[in-house]
Amino acid sequence: MKEKHLKNPCLLIPAVVFFLWTMAAASYAADNLEPALSHPEQQKQAESKLAALEKKISKKPNILIFIVDDLGWGDPGAFGGGEAVGAPTPSIDRLAREGLKLTSTYAQPTCSPTRGTLNTGRLPIRHGIWRPPLYNEPGGLDGEITAAGILSDSGYKAAMVGKWHLGENKNQQPQNVGYDEFFGFLGVSTIYTDWRDEHFNPEVVYKKERYDAIEKAPFNKNLVAAKKGEDLREIKEITIPVMAQIDQDFADYSDGFIRRMAEDKKPFYLIHAFSKVHYDNYPAKGYAGKSPAAQVYKDAVVEVDDIVGRLIKTLEETGQAENTFVFFTSDNGPEEDTWPDSGHTPFRGAKGSTWEGGVRVPGIAWWPGTIPAGRVSDGLFDLGDLFNTSLSLAGVTDKIPTDRYIDGIDQSSFLLADNGMSNRKSVYMYIQNKFTALRWQEYKYHRYIVEVGDGEYTATGSIQNSKLVEAAYGLPYNLYLDPKERKPIGIRKLWTVPIFGQEGARHMKTFVKYPPKKPQVVMPGR
Amino acid sequence: MKEKHLKNPCLLIPAVVFFLWTMAAASYAADNLEPALSHPEQQKQAESKLAALEKKISKKPNILIFIVDDLGWGDPGAFGGGEAVGAPTPSIDRLAREGLKLTSTYAQPTCSPTRGTLNTGRLPIRHGIWRPPLYNEPGGLDGEITAAGILSDSGYKAAMVGKWHLGENKNQQPQNVGYDEFFGFLGVSTIYTDWRDEHFNPEVVYKKERYDAIEKAPFNKNLVAAKKGEDLREIKEITIPVMAQIDQDFADYSDGFIRRMAEDKKPFYLIHAFSKVHYDNYPAKGYAGKSPAAQVYKDAVVEVDDIVGRLIKTLEETGQAENTFVFFTSDNGPEEDTWPDSGHTPFRGAKGSTWEGGVRVPGIAWWPGTIPAGRVSDGLFDLGDLFNTSLSLAGVTDKIPTDRYIDGIDQSSFLLADNGMSNRKSVYMYIQNKFTALRWQEYKYHRYIVEVGDGEYTATGSIQNSKLVEAAYGLPYNLYLDPKERKPIGIRKLWTVPIFGQEGARHMKTFVKYPPKKPQVVMPGR
Repeated sequence: MKEKHLKNPCLLIPAVVFFLWTMAAASYAADNLEPALSHPEQQKQAESKLAALEKKISKKPNILIFIVDDLGWGDPGAFGGGEAVGAPTPSIDRLAREGLKLTSTYAQPTCSPTRGTLNTGRLPIRHGIWRPPLYNEPGGLDGEITAAGILSDSGYKAAMVGKWHLGENKNQQPQNVGYDEFFGFLGVSTIYTDWRDEHFNPEVVYKKERYDAIEKAPFNKNLVAAKKGEDLREIKEITIPVMAQIDQDFADYSDGFIRRMAEDKKPFYLIHAFSKVHYDNYPAKGYAGKSPAAQVYKDAVVEVDDIVGRLIKTLEETGQAENTFVFFTSDNGPEEDTWPDSGHTPFRGAKGSTWEGGVRVPGIAWWPGTIPAGRVSDGLFDLGDLFNTSLSLAGVTDKIPTDRYIDGIDQSSFLLADNGMSNRKSVYMYIQNKFTALRWQEYKYHRYIVEVGDGEYTATGSIQNSKLVEAAYGLPYNLYLDPKERKPIGIRKLWTVPIFGQEGARHMKTFVKYPPKKPQVVMPGR
Repeated sequence: MKEKHLKNPCLLIPAVVFFLWTMAAASYAADNLEPALSHPEQQKQAESKLAALEKKISKKPNILIFIVDDLGWGDPGAFGGGEAVGAPTPSIDRLAREGLKLTSTYAQPTCSPTRGTLNTGRLPIRHGIWRPPLYNEPGGLDGEITAAGILSDSGYKAAMVGKWHLGENKNQQPQNVGYDEFFGFLGVSTIYTDWRDEHFNPEVVYKKERYDAIEKAPFNKNLVAAKKGEDLREIKEITIPVMAQIDQDFADYSDGFIRRMAEDKKPFYLIHAFSKVHYDNYPAKGYAGKSPAAQVYKDAVVEVDDIVGRLIKTLEETGQAENTFVFFTSDNGPEEDTWPDSGHTPFRGAKGSTWEGGVRVPGIAWWPGTIPAGRVSDGLFDLGDLFNTSLSLAGVTDKIPTDRYIDGIDQSSFLLADNGMSNRKSVYMYIQNKFTALRWQEYKYHRYIVEVGDGEYTATGSIQNSKLVEAAYGLPYNLYLDPKERKPIGIRKLWTVPIFGQEGARHMKTFVKYPPKKPQVVMPGR
């Protein structure tokens, strides 16, 4: 093996990584933008494609981001799932086939932190949402600047459809943090239904006092809508039957929005955030038993796939496909604690951990005529990159905030150039406020890991059944040779030590000038 | 969940399975053919496609089977590997995209048993090769009837190119069990090179006595060739540099054979059996570091993919693609004992076990104009089915032997009809002579499992690091909901008990009229 990056391995030991990571040199003058790798040729090609398209359409490109809740990397057929796991995904697979399949797309290990990062381009330790706020807990994008806000101020119509889960406080609702319109719910599907479900929570359903306490708890239990700056309109209470149909309501809304926008002079920025396939899944009309597996999770995957197909068809029917950048992804790995209402990842771990199973998600970029069909890349992509990339596609990178650190990177040249390479050097992974791991190229280094149950292969779940454990010397893996993260390779790859150390230290140093934000909600005891 | 198959679950307990499996009713008059599911509509469609093609080409179809050694289900891009695991496979992916991707294709857990089954349509317990014969051990297709032999007698030219590994005894060499020509080696790559490799076996290389003993051991160490009935010609001794290039030699031979056959009135049956990606992989010229992972196994995957692409191109250039049924597969799961010279499976276990990781292999059927592009099916396919299917495509099912049990099933209607469904009800899995597991639809039932190491997730390898353990009550899994086989579901799915029991008993009963064959080679102590 050629050791291209070797400098002086004999003098370096794994402990250096810890030293560098925890050291934060005060003299370092951090820029506020995560440095990007330089690829001038592909940058030029991407820019010329965008210019040609704008000349043709006389409009900036639309942006449509599909984000499924808790879908596993291994669920779509294009990623090895589909038919093999009892839920075909022909529409998602079509996007992959006709676009760019990104095999190393990274989310945060839980839902709200990812959504915060997607909206702000900033890691949870900076945007302040370390973990999902539940029921009547506070938590939101306090003081943050969203891509939606910048785009809305720059001639775009920005819409948020579906699951928000970034705070209920009035000033942190979508219509007050930049979106021109919002249709969806403020929390996460479970909080509307679990206490109403006599199967999972009979001890609430049949104990009036408990039931009433939750029903009266001060969190919004409705499907809601609002235009920018307005108060929320409550459409209907999200009972279990309403929840079963809610992704159809979201689809109707997005479908209508896309049709409206075809007649509008403004380009659009639409986040379509599914409620499914987050537990507890209740089948929409016609979907019970529709998947080959005939089980709620799998039926939900089929419904999600159908909705993706429907909205893509709407784009095409309204003549907007050529001018719309579409991105498909999930907010974290599968939730295994609720198995069998649970997805599939071929990797180790699940939602909640920074093993690959928790953070590696499907990523597909589709844009007929602009992104060539059939591309596949393992280049690093962090969902925070959608912040910078969206602003870049809209031509407003000059509006990226300068008063705060932005962890996202403009990946437009990676996605649009015919053989584009990722502009991202490393991905930084966190569990709440703990910097647990980093990926650089095909290597991954864990400083802390989630240990599940007793460590047996049969153990599943990374949230309710987990311990956070510090590595004695760090746990480095080669993800090409060991995608399941089973065989640490540090002793034979000492040359990786300074690289992990430098990359970790580079990240830590950014907090000197831009300290972490105090979160609005933390787990008890943190 | 609809329980369609439920009869009387309360009266049945898991132990019934054991009872039925071990019971072999002497009164049962077994037919000699594994019963197939009946799909008359698709059968008709497949037959009419074949008839139309024969009318057009005036020749029976060619058959080309690619069998890679130890390639994992998760290695090709089309199955979730490729770029994601550092070894893109564009040619294999093309076959999947333009043909039928079979996500539930099953091999035996080790090499020679699978090859015996592929050649004879019979399980190892019947054809007599329970596990790979090594170095100078005996072992071969003694008294067996091969598809090659039947086809050669029926107007086909049958060629075996590459790794044989089905016995060295003269009367069991390819040219003496039905093949018109053979070019390859008789054993497995490792036995030619491991004792020559100063990195892996310095204690042999540097101890003359040991080295000489192996060098003089009576097994053939040459690349060889023969025409039907002739003695082997020795072409060259397989040293390490020869082994590095040997898949190129095989490719040259198959390329020449395909070109020759374009001018021949006979159709052909060609097994192209790679030496790679079995350990120890040595890169062919130009392949060292060619994969993104820049590691021997991954470079070997890239070489295999290039060869697939080259031979498909030859088929196309010679105008034979339209008349050639192509099947791509592997002989078992990845060999994890030799990591990192090892492949990827998203499933539990590896080569040697009957966990999915050991027996589930990539399967692709490609036949432009006859098999529609873009099909994907999770229908059950056993590599033994290629025996019956090949004879069916050649129109000679009447030549299937009647004096012995054939476990293969004619899957031509599954593969060729536009929406064909599998004709196979169950797959039976063995470790050597132990009936360890069966798959029925999406369910799998283990009677014996291979436990690896101490059961930790981090443990790898299913051969040198394994124990065969009997399940106290059987271990049933739902592979759609639990592809990694971690959560047994028997207690909540008692209705599966009689099905597993009946399917197991049906299989066991076949041995009453057709007893197992005594193997020529067994592990010490068996």
